[in-house]
Amino acid sequence: MSFIATPQTMHFPEVLPLQSGASLRDYHLAFETYGTLNADASNAVLVCHALNASHHVAGVYAGQDKSEGWWDNMIGPGKPVDTNRLFVIGVNNLGSCFGSTGPMHLHPDTGEVYGADFPVVTVEDWVNAQARLLDRLGITQLAAVLGGSLGGMQALSWTLQYPERVRHAVVVASAPNLTAENIAFNEVARRAIVTDPDFHGGHFYRHGVVPKRGLRIARMIGHITYLSDDVMNEKFGRQLREGLDLKYSTQDIEFQIESYLRYQGDKFSEYFDANTYLLITRALDYFDPARGHGGDLTRALARATAKFLLISFTTDWRFSPRRSREIVKALLDNRRHVSYAEIDAPHGHDAFLLDDARYMNVMRSYFNSIAKELA
Amino acid sequence: MSFIATPQTMHFPEVLPLQSGASLRDYHLAFETYGTLNADASNAVLVCHALNASHHVAGVYAGQDKSEGWWDNMIGPGKPVDTNRLFVIGVNNLGSCFGSTGPMHLHPDTGEVYGADFPVVTVEDWVNAQARLLDRLGITQLAAVLGGSLGGMQALSWTLQYPERVRHAVVVASAPNLTAENIAFNEVARRAIVTDPDFHGGHFYRHGVVPKRGLRIARMIGHITYLSDDVMNEKFGRQLREGLDLKYSTQDIEFQIESYLRYQGDKFSEYFDANTYLLITRALDYFDPARGHGGDLTRALARATAKFLLISFTTDWRFSPRRSREIVKALLDNRRHVSYAEIDAPHGHDAFLLDDARYMNVMRSYFNSIAKELA
Repeated sequence: MSFIATPQTMHFPEVLPLQSGASLRDYHLAFETYGTLNADASNAVLVCHALNASHHVAGVYAGQDKSEGWWDNMIGPGKPVDTNRLFVIGVNNLGSCFGSTGPMHLHPDTGEVYGADFPVVTVEDWVNAQARLLDRLGITQLAAVLGGSLGGMQALSWTLQYPERVRHAVVVASAPNLTAENIAFNEVARRAIVTDPDFHGGHFYRHGVVPKRGLRIARMIGHITYLSDDVMNEKFGRQLREGLDLKYSTQDIEFQIESYLRYQGDKFSEYFDANTYLLITRALDYFDPARGHGGDLTRALARATAKFLLISFTTDWRFSPRRSREIVKALLDNRRHVSYAEIDAPHGHDAFLLDDARYMNVMRSYFNSIAKELA
Repeated sequence: MSFIATPQTMHFPEVLPLQSGASLRDYHLAFETYGTLNADASNAVLVCHALNASHHVAGVYAGQDKSEGWWDNMIGPGKPVDTNRLFVIGVNNLGSCFGSTGPMHLHPDTGEVYGADFPVVTVEDWVNAQARLLDRLGITQLAAVLGGSLGGMQALSWTLQYPERVRHAVVVASAPNLTAENIAFNEVARRAIVTDPDFHGGHFYRHGVVPKRGLRIARMIGHITYLSDDVMNEKFGRQLREGLDLKYSTQDIEFQIESYLRYQGDKFSEYFDANTYLLITRALDYFDPARGHGGDLTRALARATAKFLLISFTTDWRFSPRRSREIVKALLDNRRHVSYAEIDAPHGHDAFLLDDARYMNVMRSYFNSIAKELA
């Protein structure tokens, strides 16, 4: 049994300047909080989400079965990130499709649905928007900012954009930027969406259609890269879907892995917004704090003053341990306080969302020490 | 300067029973030969092709610039597979789109284009068809059968289907079957093609269209998996396509890697047949000689009597060295004569087509010894 979570929304009438030069105004952020903010507002932990997640990080929605938040195993009363002691905030990013202002909402200037006209948002823009939410909640400084994958990029960016507002940054299964291969997978997914005839240049809402073909392909590609080769072989291997005889068909499902991927693709295409997919993969592509420092990550991270915990997973080939070690090295070069755990887990990138005793223990111990600093 | 190659075609009126239970009749095989068959027909080397290659293995076409065969660096007069001493045969597989009978040809029963009705063909079927071609050419036994990737699977299958007809098998960058991850990538590519509205269930020829969107996506996915992460970073990294400033766009090209993939996808969609893509990826999925032996590769390979050379490349994550070592182990368990070279090359799966001095030397030395056996 988990606790009951209640989504909230905050309205921001003021203009948010974006990295691209464009801006957003009159936007909403959907968020949730768990636990209680203490008297000096020093126990707040911000959780940043990855590609297809949301502000619903932990707990369940009243009366809704199977509505656990996406990191419910990690966050809650008595859990590694213990909401009996910490005040945890989940926030949905701008451009998403789960409550915060995004491509399916109305442009305040035109009264038309944004669609493809929703401006490109970056990790830095998200962090700026999150900072404003914290201002409204009366939180000057975070006990910790925490995220996995793209969420880890936001956590890292917090330490650079608002160094004085972050005491600890916990960056899980992340990277200082995407490799060419990562960008390549994102690009194929985007091309599948953009070239779907139902995409209509991103204005499919007007046509009453959804580019589901493209979304399915995008999600299938994603799923392959979230899992390790080993875990795929263990879960699916070369198992046939039906019986023992081959059907000899190019279009029917033959292997279990095909069935799994088609199911994941179908499910995703029912709820995820195509423009959001483009925006979020682009935010991943663009993130590169070393870019403004001639590619020198050590110089880029010199601004960070937070204490860090970095965690990576041995079988994660999308955000490999090597990438986390680059961040660790750059922080150590700057004589920062860094802990690093490389978890030997079989599940690939998905491992950061799964129960692994060693991983959970590292997180529990680190957040325990954060909570103790408050006492 | 390479030598001039001349494509030929052989007609087979007789029925070819297929593994699926279906059959083909009245089919053609396109092929090329290089060098001269010796008096006792003992110097023949059959080269089997992979996914998007053909019978045009070496040499150039008269009057056509840049028409080198796909393995022209490996095969020819004085090259590692030396056509001054060996008689080399390249054959296009059934179901392909480069000359042999395939989905764009007419079904002899109906007079209609096969399209999606072209029967599923397997590696074993291809080998049977190749064997008939050799019969016609008067070749009872091959000095060697040689192939990379899917071509390596055919070479391996030759040693099981016609053990007495193969003296040497050279299996490069191959595997005893596909992993779940391999099948998964194939499935995404197939879904992109099949769900393209221009596919029309595989009968797009009748509609005067080509499912180019799907073919582009399929090829982009393929290209990512042919290269290693390292070589992608080295060739493209995070380089922007134009200048130094970001454009902040989700649909325009921003990074060089995007430009490269789109170009490769566009080019491929201009010449490759969509039904052929489905057939060939399915042949890859299905190949699994251990399947009929309860998954026991050692038992499966007990029939093979040829001498083997296996080669793998360290950065090939699609057909990793581990998979070649499975074949080596199964052959050694059967006390077969096996040589194995694991080449430390940066180029991923593509390495088997590229010039690498160590790789070339291993091949040259092995084929030299084959040629010496003839003298």
